[in-house]
Amino acid sequence: MASTRTQIIEKTCELLELQGYYATGINQIIDESQSPKGSLYYHFPGGKEQLATEALHHVGGIVLQRIRDNLALEPDPAIAIRNFIKNIAMNVESTEYRTGGPITAIAMETASTNETLRVECERIYRDWQTAFADKLIEANISETRAHRLSILILSAIEGGVLLCRIRKSIQPLDDVADEIAEILKL
Amino acid sequence: MASTRTQIIEKTCELLELQGYYATGINQIIDESQSPKGSLYYHFPGGKEQLATEALHHVGGIVLQRIRDNLALEPDPAIAIRNFIKNIAMNVESTEYRTGGPITAIAMETASTNETLRVECERIYRDWQTAFADKLIEANISETRAHRLSILILSAIEGGVLLCRIRKSIQPLDDVADEIAEILKL
Repeated sequence: MASTRTQIIEKTCELLELQGYYATGINQIIDESQSPKGSLYYHFPGGKEQLATEALHHVGGIVLQRIRDNLALEPDPAIAIRNFIKNIAMNVESTEYRTGGPITAIAMETASTNETLRVECERIYRDWQTAFADKLIEANISETRAHRLSILILSAIEGGVLLCRIRKSIQPLDDVADEIAEILKL
Repeated sequence: MASTRTQIIEKTCELLELQGYYATGINQIIDESQSPKGSLYYHFPGGKEQLATEALHHVGGIVLQRIRDNLALEPDPAIAIRNFIKNIAMNVESTEYRTGGPITAIAMETASTNETLRVECERIYRDWQTAFADKLIEANISETRAHRLSILILSAIEGGVLLCRIRKSIQPLDDVADEIAEILKL
Protein backbone atom coordinates (compact mmCIF):
# COMPACT_ATOMS: atom_id res chain seq x y z
CA MET A 1 0.00 0.00 0.00
CA ALA A 2 3.09 2.24 -0.05
CA SER A 3 2.05 3.86 -3.29
CA THR A 4 -1.43 4.84 -2.07
CA ARG A 5 0.18 6.44 0.96
CA THR A 6 2.67 8.38 -1.17
CA GLN A 7 -0.06 9.40 -3.60
CA ILE A 8 -2.13 10.83 -0.77
CA ILE A 9 0.85 12.69 0.68
CA GLU A 10 1.87 14.16 -2.66
CA LYS A 11 -1.64 15.36 -3.42
CA THR A 12 -1.83 16.89 0.07
CA CYS A 13 1.45 18.77 -0.50
CA GLU A 14 0.08 20.16 -3.74
CA LEU A 15 -3.21 21.30 -2.21
CA LEU A 16 -1.55 22.80 0.87
CA GLU A 17 0.79 24.84 -1.31
CA LEU A 18 -2.04 26.08 -3.52
CA GLN A 19 -4.75 26.63 -0.92
CA GLY A 20 -3.25 26.50 2.54
CA TYR A 21 -4.40 24.38 5.46
CA TYR A 22 -7.85 25.67 6.30
CA ALA A 23 -9.18 25.77 2.75
CA THR A 24 -8.06 22.19 2.09
CA GLY A 25 -10.65 19.63 3.12
CA ILE A 26 -10.07 15.96 3.70
CA ASN A 27 -12.75 15.15 1.11
CA GLN A 28 -10.92 17.09 -1.58
CA ILE A 29 -7.75 15.15 -0.77
CA ILE A 30 -9.68 11.88 -1.05
CA ASP A 31 -11.28 12.92 -4.35
CA GLU A 32 -8.18 14.30 -6.01
CA SER A 33 -5.81 11.56 -4.91
CA GLN A 34 -8.42 9.03 -6.06
CA SER A 35 -8.00 7.01 -2.89
CA PRO A 36 -10.80 5.35 -0.93
CA LYS A 37 -11.81 7.17 2.25
CA GLY A 38 -11.01 4.06 4.29
CA SER A 39 -7.44 3.93 3.08
CA LEU A 40 -6.87 7.57 4.01
CA TYR A 41 -7.94 6.95 7.60
CA TYR A 42 -6.06 3.65 7.62
CA HIS A 43 -2.80 5.37 6.70
CA PHE A 44 -3.47 8.57 8.62
CA PRO A 45 -5.55 7.77 11.70
CA GLY A 46 -4.84 11.29 12.99
CA GLY A 47 -6.80 12.73 10.06
CA LYS A 48 -6.07 16.06 8.44
CA GLU A 49 -3.54 17.26 11.01
CA GLN A 50 -1.44 14.10 10.76
CA LEU A 51 -1.67 14.16 7.00
CA ALA A 52 -0.60 17.80 6.84
CA THR A 53 2.30 17.16 9.24
CA GLU A 54 3.55 14.28 7.10
CA ALA A 55 3.04 16.29 3.90
CA LEU A 56 5.10 19.15 5.37
CA HIS A 57 7.79 16.68 6.41
CA HIS A 58 7.82 15.21 2.90
CA VAL A 59 8.04 18.48 0.99
CA GLY A 60 10.47 19.95 3.53
CA GLY A 61 12.86 17.07 2.87
CA ILE A 62 12.57 17.40 -0.92
CA VAL A 63 13.29 21.13 -0.80
CA LEU A 64 16.19 20.63 1.62
CA GLN A 65 17.78 18.17 -0.80
CA ARG A 66 17.18 20.59 -3.69
CA ILE A 67 18.87 23.42 -1.77
CA ARG A 68 21.89 21.24 -0.95
CA ASP A 69 22.19 19.87 -4.50
CA ASN A 70 21.92 23.31 -6.05
CA LEU A 71 24.40 24.93 -3.70
CA ALA A 72 26.88 22.12 -4.34
CA LEU A 73 27.01 23.00 -8.05
CA GLU A 74 29.18 26.09 -7.52
CA PRO A 75 32.02 26.56 -5.05
CA ASP A 76 31.44 30.33 -4.68
CA PRO A 77 28.44 30.84 -2.35
CA ALA A 78 27.55 34.18 -4.00
CA ILE A 79 27.11 32.49 -7.38
CA ALA A 80 25.57 29.33 -5.96
CA ILE A 81 22.93 31.18 -3.94
CA ARG A 82 22.18 33.66 -6.72
CA ASN A 83 21.62 30.80 -9.17
CA PHE A 84 19.44 28.95 -6.69
CA ILE A 85 17.20 31.99 -6.15
CA LYS A 86 16.94 32.59 -9.92
CA ASN A 87 15.88 28.95 -10.28
CA ILE A 88 13.09 29.47 -7.79
CA ALA A 89 11.96 32.51 -9.79
CA MET A 90 11.78 30.40 -12.95
CA ASN A 91 9.81 27.71 -11.15
CA VAL A 92 7.30 30.25 -9.86
CA GLU A 93 6.94 31.64 -13.39
CA SER A 94 6.51 28.17 -14.89
CA THR A 95 3.33 27.60 -12.87
CA GLU A 96 2.02 31.02 -13.91
CA TYR A 97 2.66 32.31 -10.39
CA ARG A 98 0.27 29.83 -8.79
CA THR A 99 2.91 28.09 -6.66
CA GLY A 100 6.20 28.79 -4.96
CA GLY A 101 6.89 28.67 -1.26
CA PRO A 102 5.57 25.16 -0.57
CA ILE A 103 5.12 25.79 3.15
CA THR A 104 4.60 29.58 3.26
CA ALA A 105 0.80 29.62 3.28
CA ILE A 106 0.48 26.88 5.87
CA ALA A 107 3.21 28.48 8.05
CA MET A 108 1.42 31.82 7.98
CA GLU A 109 -1.94 30.26 8.80
CA THR A 110 -0.88 27.87 11.52
CA ALA A 111 1.82 29.92 13.31
CA SER A 112 -0.65 30.89 16.02
CA THR A 113 -3.41 28.35 15.53
CA ASN A 114 -1.92 24.85 15.38
CA GLU A 115 1.07 24.01 17.54
CA THR A 116 1.83 20.65 15.86
CA LEU A 117 2.06 22.23 12.42
CA ARG A 118 3.91 25.29 13.71
CA VAL A 119 6.61 23.07 15.23
CA GLU A 120 6.97 21.12 11.98
CA CYS A 121 7.30 24.37 9.96
CA GLU A 122 9.87 25.66 12.45
CA ARG A 123 11.94 22.51 12.03
CA ILE A 124 11.79 22.71 8.22
CA TYR A 125 12.80 26.38 8.10
CA ARG A 126 15.69 25.63 10.44
CA ASP A 127 16.93 22.84 8.17
CA TRP A 128 16.72 25.05 5.08
CA GLN A 129 18.47 27.90 6.85
CA THR A 130 21.23 25.58 8.03
CA ALA A 131 21.84 24.44 4.44
CA PHE A 132 22.54 28.07 3.45
CA ALA A 133 24.64 28.69 6.57
CA ASP A 134 26.73 25.57 5.90
CA LYS A 135 27.54 26.80 2.40
CA LEU A 136 28.71 30.14 3.81
CA ILE A 137 30.76 28.51 6.58
CA GLU A 138 32.49 26.32 3.98
CA ALA A 139 33.59 29.56 2.31
CA ASN A 140 35.19 30.67 5.58
CA ILE A 141 32.50 33.07 6.70
CA SER A 142 32.30 33.07 10.51
CA GLU A 143 29.54 31.00 12.07
CA THR A 144 27.83 34.04 13.60
CA ARG A 145 27.78 35.98 10.34
CA ALA A 146 26.79 32.89 8.33
CA HIS A 147 23.87 32.35 10.66
CA ARG A 148 22.66 35.95 10.30
CA LEU A 149 23.13 35.94 6.54
CA SER A 150 21.26 32.67 6.19
CA ILE A 151 18.29 34.18 8.04
CA LEU A 152 18.35 37.14 5.64
CA ILE A 153 18.55 34.81 2.63
CA LEU A 154 15.69 32.59 3.77
CA SER A 155 13.51 35.59 4.74
CA ALA A 156 14.17 37.32 1.42
CA ILE A 157 13.33 34.16 -0.52
CA GLU A 158 10.06 33.64 1.37
CA GLY A 159 9.08 37.29 0.90
CA GLY A 160 10.39 37.41 -2.67
CA VAL A 161 8.24 34.46 -3.74
CA LEU A 162 5.22 36.26 -2.32
CA LEU A 163 6.05 39.48 -4.20
CA CYS A 164 6.56 37.54 -7.46
CA ARG A 165 3.18 35.89 -7.07
CA ILE A 166 1.48 39.21 -6.27
CA ARG A 167 3.13 41.01 -9.21
CA LYS A 168 2.97 38.06 -11.60
CA SER A 169 6.59 38.82 -12.40
CA ILE A 170 9.94 37.20 -11.65
CA GLN A 171 11.52 40.63 -11.09
CA PRO A 172 11.34 40.65 -7.25
CA LEU A 173 13.22 37.34 -6.84
CA ASP A 174 15.64 38.34 -9.59
CA ASP A 175 16.42 41.53 -7.70
CA VAL A 176 16.73 39.62 -4.42
CA ALA A 177 19.14 37.17 -6.10
CA ASP A 178 21.34 39.98 -7.45
CA GLU A 179 21.42 41.90 -4.18
CA ILE A 180 22.19 38.81 -2.12
CA ALA A 181 25.04 37.96 -4.51
CA GLU A 182 26.33 41.51 -4.09
CA ILE A 183 26.31 41.15 -0.28
CA LEU A 184 28.07 37.80 -0.39
CA LYS A 185 31.06 39.26 -2.21
CA LEU A 186 31.89 40.25 1.38
CA MET B 1 -22.78 56.61 9.95
CA ALA B 2 -19.06 57.16 9.42
CA SER B 3 -18.14 55.48 12.68
CA THR B 4 -20.03 52.25 11.94
CA ARG B 5 -18.27 52.07 8.60
CA THR B 6 -14.86 52.62 10.19
CA GLN B 7 -15.62 50.13 12.94
CA ILE B 8 -16.48 47.46 10.38
CA ILE B 9 -13.34 48.17 8.36
CA GLU B 10 -11.05 48.09 11.39
CA LYS B 11 -12.52 44.80 12.62
CA THR B 12 -12.10 43.37 9.11
CA CYS B 13 -8.43 44.41 9.04
CA GLU B 14 -7.88 42.67 12.35
CA LEU B 15 -9.57 39.44 11.28
CA LEU B 16 -7.84 39.36 7.89
CA GLU B 17 -4.44 39.73 9.53
CA LEU B 18 -5.17 36.99 12.08
CA GLN B 19 -7.05 34.53 9.90
CA GLY B 20 -6.65 35.44 6.26
CA TYR B 21 -9.41 35.93 3.71
CA TYR B 22 -10.99 32.53 3.34
CA ALA B 23 -11.27 31.75 7.03
CA THR B 24 -12.94 35.09 7.74
CA GLY B 25 -16.69 34.98 7.29
CA ILE B 26 -18.99 37.93 6.89
CA ASN B 27 -21.00 36.77 9.91
CA GLN B 28 -17.93 36.89 12.14
CA ILE B 29 -17.26 40.45 10.98
CA ILE B 30 -20.87 41.39 11.76
CA ASP B 31 -20.72 39.74 15.20
CA GLU B 32 -17.35 41.08 16.26
CA SER B 33 -17.85 44.61 14.98
CA GLN B 34 -21.28 44.59 16.68
CA SER B 35 -22.90 46.11 13.64
CA PRO B 36 -26.29 45.15 12.27
CA LYS B 37 -26.21 42.96 9.15
CA GLY B 38 -28.16 45.57 7.23
CA SER B 39 -25.62 48.29 7.87
CA LEU B 40 -22.80 46.08 6.62
CA TYR B 41 -24.54 45.53 3.30
CA TYR B 42 -25.59 49.17 3.20
CA HIS B 43 -21.98 50.32 3.49
CA PHE B 44 -20.48 47.47 1.49
CA PRO B 45 -22.96 46.36 -1.16
CA GLY B 46 -20.17 44.31 -2.78
CA GLY B 47 -20.05 42.11 0.34
CA LYS B 48 -16.92 40.39 1.59
CA GLU B 49 -14.75 41.19 -1.43
CA GLN B 50 -15.50 44.90 -1.31
CA LEU B 51 -15.02 44.94 2.44
CA ALA B 52 -11.67 43.16 2.18
CA THR B 53 -10.52 45.50 -0.58
CA GLU B 54 -11.37 48.55 1.50
CA ALA B 55 -9.78 47.00 4.60
CA LEU B 56 -6.57 46.35 2.65
CA HIS B 57 -6.63 49.92 1.37
CA HIS B 58 -7.11 51.20 4.92
CA VAL B 59 -4.33 49.19 6.55
CA GLY B 60 -2.01 49.70 3.57
CA GLY B 61 -2.31 53.46 4.03
CA ILE B 62 -1.68 53.28 7.78
CA VAL B 63 1.44 51.17 7.31
CA LEU B 64 2.71 53.42 4.51
CA GLN B 65 2.42 56.42 6.82
CA ARG B 66 4.18 54.48 9.59
CA ILE B 67 7.05 53.57 7.24
CA ARG B 68 7.45 57.20 6.11
CA ASP B 69 7.24 58.59 9.65
CA ASN B 70 9.75 56.08 11.00
CA LEU B 71 12.23 56.56 8.19
CA ALA B 72 12.05 60.34 8.62
CA LEU B 73 13.35 60.06 12.20
CA GLU B 74 16.94 59.38 11.14
CA PRO B 75 18.85 60.89 8.24
CA ASP B 76 21.07 57.81 7.71
CA PRO B 77 18.99 55.19 5.85
CA ALA B 78 21.00 52.30 7.39
CA ILE B 79 20.03 53.40 10.90
CA ALA B 80 16.51 54.45 9.96
CA ILE B 81 15.68 51.15 8.24
CA ARG B 82 17.36 49.04 10.94
CA ASN B 83 15.33 50.81 13.64
CA PHE B 84 12.13 50.42 11.65
CA ILE B 85 12.66 46.65 11.27
CA LYS B 86 13.50 46.30 14.98
CA ASN B 87 10.24 48.12 15.74
CA ILE B 88 8.29 45.62 13.68
CA ALA B 89 9.96 42.82 15.63
CA MET B 90 8.85 44.37 18.91
CA ASN B 91 5.30 44.75 17.62
CA VAL B 92 5.18 41.10 16.58
CA GLU B 93 6.47 40.10 20.01
CA SER B 94 3.95 42.34 21.80
CA THR B 95 1.04 40.35 20.34
CA GLU B 96 2.71 37.09 21.34
CA TYR B 97 3.52 36.40 17.70
CA ARG B 98 -0.12 36.34 16.63
CA THR B 99 0.13 39.29 14.25
CA GLY B 100 2.63 41.04 12.02
CA GLY B 101 2.47 41.35 8.27
CA PRO B 102 -1.04 42.83 8.04
CA ILE B 103 -1.50 41.84 4.39
CA THR B 104 0.83 38.80 4.11
CA ALA B 105 -1.77 36.09 4.69
CA ILE B 106 -4.33 37.61 2.36
CA ALA B 107 -1.68 38.28 -0.30
CA MET B 108 -0.53 34.67 -0.18
CA GLU B 109 -4.07 33.33 -0.36
CA THR B 110 -5.46 35.58 -3.05
CA ALA B 111 -2.44 35.94 -5.36
CA SER B 112 -3.87 33.33 -7.71
CA THR B 113 -7.49 33.20 -6.64
CA ASN B 114 -8.92 36.72 -6.49
CA GLU B 115 -7.80 39.29 -9.02
CA THR B 116 -9.39 42.30 -7.27
CA LEU B 117 -7.58 41.57 -4.01
CA ARG B 118 -4.32 40.66 -5.78
CA VAL B 119 -4.29 44.02 -7.55
CA GLU B 120 -4.92 45.85 -4.28
CA CYS B 121 -2.07 43.94 -2.56
CA GLU B 122 0.23 44.69 -5.49
CA ARG B 123 -0.51 48.41 -5.21
CA ILE B 124 0.11 48.39 -1.45
CA TYR B 125 3.43 46.54 -1.70
CA ARG B 126 4.53 48.97 -4.42
CA ASP B 127 3.75 51.95 -2.20
CA TRP B 128 5.66 50.46 0.74
CA GLN B 129 8.60 49.57 -1.47
CA THR B 130 8.68 53.09 -2.92
CA ALA B 131 8.86 54.56 0.59
CA PHE B 132 12.06 52.57 1.24
CA ALA B 133 13.46 53.41 -2.22
CA ASP B 134 12.80 57.13 -1.68
CA LYS B 135 14.77 57.07 1.57
CA LEU B 136 17.72 55.46 -0.23
CA ILE B 137 17.55 57.87 -3.17
CA GLU B 138 17.59 60.81 -0.73
CA ALA B 139 20.90 59.43 0.54
CA ASN B 140 22.29 59.56 -3.02
CA ILE B 141 21.96 55.89 -3.85
CA SER B 142 21.23 55.51 -7.58
CA GLU B 143 17.62 54.91 -8.55
CA THR B 144 18.35 51.45 -9.98
CA ARG B 145 20.20 50.27 -6.90
CA ALA B 146 17.65 51.87 -4.56
CA HIS B 147 14.89 50.03 -6.37
CA ARG B 148 16.66 46.67 -6.05
CA LEU B 149 17.56 47.25 -2.41
CA SER B 150 14.01 48.26 -1.56
CA ILE B 151 12.75 44.96 -3.03
CA LEU B 152 15.26 43.09 -0.86
CA ILE B 153 14.22 45.05 2.23
CA LEU B 154 10.50 44.51 1.69
CA SER B 155 10.97 40.80 0.89
CA ALA B 156 13.17 40.27 3.93
CA ILE B 157 10.66 42.02 6.19
CA GLU B 158 7.74 39.95 4.87
CA GLY B 159 9.72 36.71 5.24
CA GLY B 160 11.27 37.80 8.54
CA VAL B 161 7.87 38.41 10.13
CA LEU B 162 6.83 34.91 9.08
CA LEU B 163 9.99 33.37 10.61
CA CYS B 164 9.47 35.31 13.86
CA ARG B 165 5.90 34.04 14.12
CA ILE B 166 6.97 30.46 13.37
CA ARG B 167 9.84 30.56 15.90
CA LYS B 168 8.02 32.67 18.47
CA SER B 169 11.16 34.75 18.63
CA ILE B 170 12.21 38.22 17.49
CA GLN B 171 15.63 36.89 16.46
CA PRO B 172 14.91 36.49 12.71
CA LEU B 173 13.81 40.12 12.22
CA ASP B 174 16.61 41.31 14.49
CA ASP B 175 19.11 39.48 12.28
CA VAL B 176 17.47 40.85 9.14
CA ALA B 177 17.66 44.38 10.58
CA ASP B 178 21.36 44.06 11.38
CA GLU B 179 22.28 42.55 8.02
CA ILE B 180 20.28 45.14 6.07
CA ALA B 181 22.03 47.89 8.05
CA GLU B 182 25.37 46.30 7.18
CA ILE B 183 24.50 46.29 3.46
CA LEU B 184 23.36 49.90 3.52
CA LYS B 185 26.73 51.09 4.73
CA LEU B 186 27.43 50.78 0.99
